[in-house]
Amino acid sequence: MVETSHSRAEFTARYFVESSVPISKAAEVIAGEQSSGTFLSLPGETEALKDRARARVTKVNSLPPVFEPSLHSAFVDRKGPVSLYYRGEIEIAFPVDNIGANLPTLLSTIAGNLFELGEVTGLRLLDIEFPETYARTFPGPRFGIEGTRRFAKVYDRPLIGTIIKPSIGLLPDQTAEIVDSLCSADIDFIKDDELLVDPAYASFDDRLAAVMPVLHRHADRLGRMPMYAINISGTIDEMLRRHDAVLAAGGTCVMVCVNWVGFAGVEHLRKNAQLPIHGHRNGWGALTRSPQLGFSFAAYQKLWRLAGIDHLHVNGLRSKFWEPDESVVDSARSCLTPFAGVQPLMPVFSSGQWASQAPDLFTMLRSVDLMHLAGGGIIGHPQGIAAGVASMREAWEAAVEGVDLTAYAQSRPALRAALSHFQAA
Amino acid sequence: MVETSHSRAEFTARYFVESSVPISKAAEVIAGEQSSGTFLSLPGETEALKDRARARVTKVNSLPPVFEPSLHSAFVDRKGPVSLYYRGEIEIAFPVDNIGANLPTLLSTIAGNLFELGEVTGLRLLDIEFPETYARTFPGPRFGIEGTRRFAKVYDRPLIGTIIKPSIGLLPDQTAEIVDSLCSADIDFIKDDELLVDPAYASFDDRLAAVMPVLHRHADRLGRMPMYAINISGTIDEMLRRHDAVLAAGGTCVMVCVNWVGFAGVEHLRKNAQLPIHGHRNGWGALTRSPQLGFSFAAYQKLWRLAGIDHLHVNGLRSKFWEPDESVVDSARSCLTPFAGVQPLMPVFSSGQWASQAPDLFTMLRSVDLMHLAGGGIIGHPQGIAAGVASMREAWEAAVEGVDLTAYAQSRPALRAALSHFQAA
Repeated sequence: MVETSHSRAEFTARYFVESSVPISKAAEVIAGEQSSGTFLSLPGETEALKDRARARVTKVNSLPPVFEPSLHSAFVDRKGPVSLYYRGEIEIAFPVDNIGANLPTLLSTIAGNLFELGEVTGLRLLDIEFPETYARTFPGPRFGIEGTRRFAKVYDRPLIGTIIKPSIGLLPDQTAEIVDSLCSADIDFIKDDELLVDPAYASFDDRLAAVMPVLHRHADRLGRMPMYAINISGTIDEMLRRHDAVLAAGGTCVMVCVNWVGFAGVEHLRKNAQLPIHGHRNGWGALTRSPQLGFSFAAYQKLWRLAGIDHLHVNGLRSKFWEPDESVVDSARSCLTPFAGVQPLMPVFSSGQWASQAPDLFTMLRSVDLMHLAGGGIIGHPQGIAAGVASMREAWEAAVEGVDLTAYAQSRPALRAALSHFQAA
Repeated sequence: MVETSHSRAEFTARYFVESSVPISKAAEVIAGEQSSGTFLSLPGETEALKDRARARVTKVNSLPPVFEPSLHSAFVDRKGPVSLYYRGEIEIAFPVDNIGANLPTLLSTIAGNLFELGEVTGLRLLDIEFPETYARTFPGPRFGIEGTRRFAKVYDRPLIGTIIKPSIGLLPDQTAEIVDSLCSADIDFIKDDELLVDPAYASFDDRLAAVMPVLHRHADRLGRMPMYAINISGTIDEMLRRHDAVLAAGGTCVMVCVNWVGFAGVEHLRKNAQLPIHGHRNGWGALTRSPQLGFSFAAYQKLWRLAGIDHLHVNGLRSKFWEPDESVVDSARSCLTPFAGVQPLMPVFSSGQWASQAPDLFTMLRSVDLMHLAGGGIIGHPQGIAAGVASMREAWEAAVEGVDLTAYAQSRPALRAALSHFQAA
């Protein structure tokens, strides 16, 4: 916990900043804008008020300046020519008492108007640090990795899973058929696509009614219920009703699209949910792809961890998405890293995945506390879905044992077929 | 309403796209990713399924290509060198039946994984168009401009308002004193800062208890209750409880930070609210400042209009923020423009405002259906707060009558003092 002379409890936010004014001044402008006022003292901005409410600039590290702004500012244009744009990393300490356990107001404070300040031509929230006493006032994950494993009854290895495809358009009985095939292959985890909740031709209730008997039949056979993250995103009332319907039907997971449900909605679900919450981050690209704007994943996952989801998507190695592999692994690592006593999140790898990524993932992450989802890598396996699932599991065995994948595949037909089929593709 | 040969109801989304593949192919990749599957047909992706669920590319307009990507893509790097990046505007038609009245799923569909596609080096949601039959299934604003005017009893001119400053740190009785001064100046509208909801030293309930008697006293005097947008952002339960407390106390408006409460939370508030909802857009900079990424305001305001807020912030002319004036006015115009039978939003101008912006705003917007908020322009007026409010009203009278501000100021001391004081600053 950062403390001032008055023992004021504080949390910190770290930013990359690019600005038309020197970084230390930009830091003061931001700290002022995001707390008690403007850069200049206002009437009523007494010393007592500043003591309780004013944010403090706690670190300023300058970086080499640039000669062109990353982001346009009409404000800078209006003020007249600027020969260079200062860059740096800054840290600001905010009083806990300004906000309390209020996620929307936390976000307004650390990720609000500061993105629009005229002096700012680049601003990215890099990370946040909380005292445990403050973090504890937010819900946090109810189940996390351990709880998810208890529901799934899968231990000491990743949960191997897939996404039902086509993403949208299937009728309830078609979905149930696919779920049946996947469960017959002893899969650990299935999820809906983020596009699919309650289409007119395949309502949520009809889908649930169609798939649950299939899951129960396989649960009886397997001695564990394959975890199905069924997408319940929607209005507050619908999400709660759908969660309760999944729970009543014996399901073990619900999924929400966190960015578009939003912080208040996800937190409300968390407080009322008795099942792990699978967090889908679609839309994340809009918040992170501009390197001098928006959010880093390190900060983003902490905010959703506070809200209380249990799993969070991080893309995959060599995926169909834009993200470099190192960034994917950094994201997963941040989900697994301690944060102010808040439970870790289970990272979810997906997109373009098959057996081959397992050794790389394990080498980079040194953990099996993750979900590894493969679409084509399971459903498109030349020997069928069961071989697809087996090839993923075998690849993780090889990875953990530190055995070369090709060598391990010699006596394992499913993995061997995956290597020869997908590597050629 | 766009119709296919099957009379399938559709809505459309329009995008700017930059891609390593030709724009028509990129458009197909996006349409596939955001509906029934991938670019290639999957098993189970039957003609019947495509008919009901597949998105259609309805327009492709190429723009001149560029030689450097706007956004980095490791996927493009991996696929090998690209000599140019195609650009264009595309329109995609999505089946209404895929989604229904589900805001989070609507967003996942039009603003989801597409931002992260490997082939995409730029993607911005420019606009959306809905059939009225679809738009009507969302809440929409309950009060809008007309309802807001009924609560405020201010007609035929903008609502002149201010934000309580310092943003945060005031004690409840200090807040009440400021509210008293503002109401004594016959102000129309007051709002909390987006940072302020429920600090430990000035709880929401204490603030409400402190300010409401002041508002009532002035309401008795003025024959109208000054509208106070009190920030209720927080958890779902807290927002509903706070809304009810404001309503019970005789308040006439509540405020929420829309991006961080989120779509599900704001829609839930709308369904349970009996007061106009003042929408603060802090964080918007992160979604819009990179010109080849994120959202345009035209699309953004429609989405929040569907969710049912009544007012939305648009910055101000010559403000302390980055945004060019034309962009500010375009935003306000889009709030006032008809959209599929959904009520318009009242645009809220603020930041660096004083009397001088009124004629420019009116010339560009040709409307008085707006809120014009000034901080220093009211509180910093050399003759006091009442003269600050008067100067803003007089400036709008001049603007609407088409009289030059300086000429109009000759017989109006408040406006004259504002012009000489603030123009010199």
